[in-house]
Amino acid sequence: METSTVGTLVSPELQSLIREKKWSELKEALADLHPADVADVLIEVPDEDDAAIFRLLPSEMASAVFSYLPRDHQQGLIHTLSHDQMRGLLAGMTPDDQVRLLDELPGKVTRKIIDSLSPDELPAARELLGYPVGTAGRYMTPQYVRIKPEMTAREALQHIRKFGQGKETLSVVYIVDKDGRLVEDVKLGSLVLADDETLVKDIQDSPLVSVKATDARDDVIATFQKYDRNALPVTDKDGKMMGIITADDVLDAAQRRATEDIQKIGGSEALDAPYLDVDFWQMCKKRGGWLAALFLGETLTATAMGHFEHEIEKAAVVALFVPLIISSGGNSGSQATSIIIRSLALREMGLNAWFKVLGKELVSGLALGTFLGFVGFCRILLWYFLGWHLYDGHPYLMGFTVWASLIGVVMFGSVVGSMLPFLLRKIGFDPATASAPFVATLVDVTGLIIYFTVAMLILRGTLL
Amino acid sequence: METSTVGTLVSPELQSLIREKKWSELKEALADLHPADVADVLIEVPDEDDAAIFRLLPSEMASAVFSYLPRDHQQGLIHTLSHDQMRGLLAGMTPDDQVRLLDELPGKVTRKIIDSLSPDELPAARELLGYPVGTAGRYMTPQYVRIKPEMTAREALQHIRKFGQGKETLSVVYIVDKDGRLVEDVKLGSLVLADDETLVKDIQDSPLVSVKATDARDDVIATFQKYDRNALPVTDKDGKMMGIITADDVLDAAQRRATEDIQKIGGSEALDAPYLDVDFWQMCKKRGGWLAALFLGETLTATAMGHFEHEIEKAAVVALFVPLIISSGGNSGSQATSIIIRSLALREMGLNAWFKVLGKELVSGLALGTFLGFVGFCRILLWYFLGWHLYDGHPYLMGFTVWASLIGVVMFGSVVGSMLPFLLRKIGFDPATASAPFVATLVDVTGLIIYFTVAMLILRGTLL
Repeated sequence: METSTVGTLVSPELQSLIREKKWSELKEALADLHPADVADVLIEVPDEDDAAIFRLLPSEMASAVFSYLPRDHQQGLIHTLSHDQMRGLLAGMTPDDQVRLLDELPGKVTRKIIDSLSPDELPAARELLGYPVGTAGRYMTPQYVRIKPEMTAREALQHIRKFGQGKETLSVVYIVDKDGRLVEDVKLGSLVLADDETLVKDIQDSPLVSVKATDARDDVIATFQKYDRNALPVTDKDGKMMGIITADDVLDAAQRRATEDIQKIGGSEALDAPYLDVDFWQMCKKRGGWLAALFLGETLTATAMGHFEHEIEKAAVVALFVPLIISSGGNSGSQATSIIIRSLALREMGLNAWFKVLGKELVSGLALGTFLGFVGFCRILLWYFLGWHLYDGHPYLMGFTVWASLIGVVMFGSVVGSMLPFLLRKIGFDPATASAPFVATLVDVTGLIIYFTVAMLILRGTLL
Repeated sequence: METSTVGTLVSPELQSLIREKKWSELKEALADLHPADVADVLIEVPDEDDAAIFRLLPSEMASAVFSYLPRDHQQGLIHTLSHDQMRGLLAGMTPDDQVRLLDELPGKVTRKIIDSLSPDELPAARELLGYPVGTAGRYMTPQYVRIKPEMTAREALQHIRKFGQGKETLSVVYIVDKDGRLVEDVKLGSLVLADDETLVKDIQDSPLVSVKATDARDDVIATFQKYDRNALPVTDKDGKMMGIITADDVLDAAQRRATEDIQKIGGSEALDAPYLDVDFWQMCKKRGGWLAALFLGETLTATAMGHFEHEIEKAAVVALFVPLIISSGGNSGSQATSIIIRSLALREMGLNAWFKVLGKELVSGLALGTFLGFVGFCRILLWYFLGWHLYDGHPYLMGFTVWASLIGVVMFGSVVGSMLPFLLRKIGFDPATASAPFVATLVDVTGLIIYFTVAMLILRGTLL
């Protein structure tokens, strides 16, 4: 067998076999590769060869390779497959992979696929599809081995030999009582190490940890992280065994979750595909929507500044510090929102922590604002004493205006940035909607009002 | 045994046992819990009880519980332990957990720990410590089972029964030849299913995938994601078997990596601890540093605007659109940088993709800028025809100024935001240093210059 290491590319041999369309030799060469690497081959070669190469694969491998392909490739291939070929393809996929496929494809394609599911396959896929998107139920697979509490270790191993073929994971097996309730999980390793006659329920192993089918994705990820497992059993609310979730699916889910959050925090919609695979129109749609919404929000800054146009005409010097002050509020808000969004996603704290967070942010906002304000004050005095700017003869007043405004704006930014994710979660939205640019926009408008109000209070009768 | 589900808190029974200091009953109750839950108990109870409760734990469990504690709790406990207790504690930890502990604690504490390592334990920990931070070597554990290629399935299972006790994972075993080279990995499940006399090297299983000890953390995570494994073997450059990395450690690494990136993208340093555990001074340090640096960068906006003070005095209306225009550049830059940072971290593309990305960003920046500019143009005309603002009689010129500036600023933002992560990685920095606020600051200063330059070109002789 071939040894794959990180970053395998399509080897020159394979490339030449494909170019010269030597299908039978190619067939042999592909059979030795890992399905993920075959998928890479399909991604790299020109699209017109996709279907031809795909048909070369043994049916089991074809299913595995298909699971590894990006969505647009999957769609492209589906259209080239007959009903029977489609059925064969799905038969080789685990139910959780089937569900993921059905979830992600457009409705028309989904119907074609569901039609081709065999009567045996349909119930499992349908059952998984019954759980809301983003819950544990969607990620579980019913392909695990269950054993009875009164079996001995030897009997359990015999049972596994008999029924274990083709199950997604064997490294943990599950003790289920006659009512279908999950009693305990046992690592295959512990079974192998146990004395032949030990009852499986007496095998000492780490305590049972399970999740409910209705638990949210983030909770499942947090449970995996906390208990360091390769697989977790999923039960219904009565403790009946439903399926298992494996670590590889959790890693995928965690990575996808983080990617979505990062893209949202950056101020676009989640791309749902690797950057280079997103075409021009998709990219404009995913980014343009938020960009336009933020732009419209930001036009309020022009309105707000319009109200102070008279003051700007009197003392243009006041306008100079507008970007500095509002961006500092945006920056502190962006820090707060990204930290809180992640903390909520990792389940480090719950919604009830909002009051503690508010206190913390008020205090640190005050400290950071005071500090930045002091730096700003010094900068203005420095420019004045160096003779670079006269501030119409009132450097101290101008300095204090900037200082006081920064305290207000940074505190406001920290509070808005930290509270918005809580609020969004509370009303049922994704906290990551409180993106850095969104918070910055909110703070820009308010920051302007804070700044000009402070300026009018301090500078009235001198500059204004 | 207790069944834990998501979100277990310290039960009222345990709380009362602790309050009434019923140590022997508490000892029994704790022995039934998962170590991660015992760690939660230690986190929740008042600090003065920590050491007392910790000493109640059987030595094996103590080590496991210790691994689950946050860093500050670990440090607190270490100071209460004798040399012998410390040795016992470390003996129960796997080498990778030892290394993580040594990595994260301050030097003085580390020395105390290394002193207490037994001569047996020291080499493994030292070997792992020899690999740079953030490479596969730091995450591997030498606690796996190796078998010989010429063993039969039955012999291999006997071997596992004899040597498997206490290994971190048994679900995969590794075929290593007499030169120490890794030949193949075999799932324990496949071994159990195989006929007794089949040679282990003939067992059909998924192809071997391995990582090198010097591979970067991101590469290891990407490999796990690609190949859906529970454990991956680590080799040196000659293919000699060094250890294994387990999926739970990879999930932890992936989550930590994403958390760091999100915090950095938000514009602060990585917090290295849950939000609520970070004290006031730490929080100010992690956030204040960047906030001050960004503030100093942003003072350049005041300088830049100072150059155009004369223009602002002539036509204050020009100043009204400053926040709108520069923030749009910042927003598009923030989108681009967060998308690219994540894409690089996921290894969706390499450094050589920069040119493709540049082309994509130029085109989408142009499209998005044109679109936003059009919206801005319409907004100005609308205000004019509604009679809300007269734009000194030149609404069209003002509108075209905003439109043209937005095209320039949004393109500039997209390009800077997307190229900066590549540049940073190229010169050896973390791409996530190109935080959203950092990009926004860069774009603010340049955006001002773009805007006023365009304004002077278009409005010269009319408004300016």
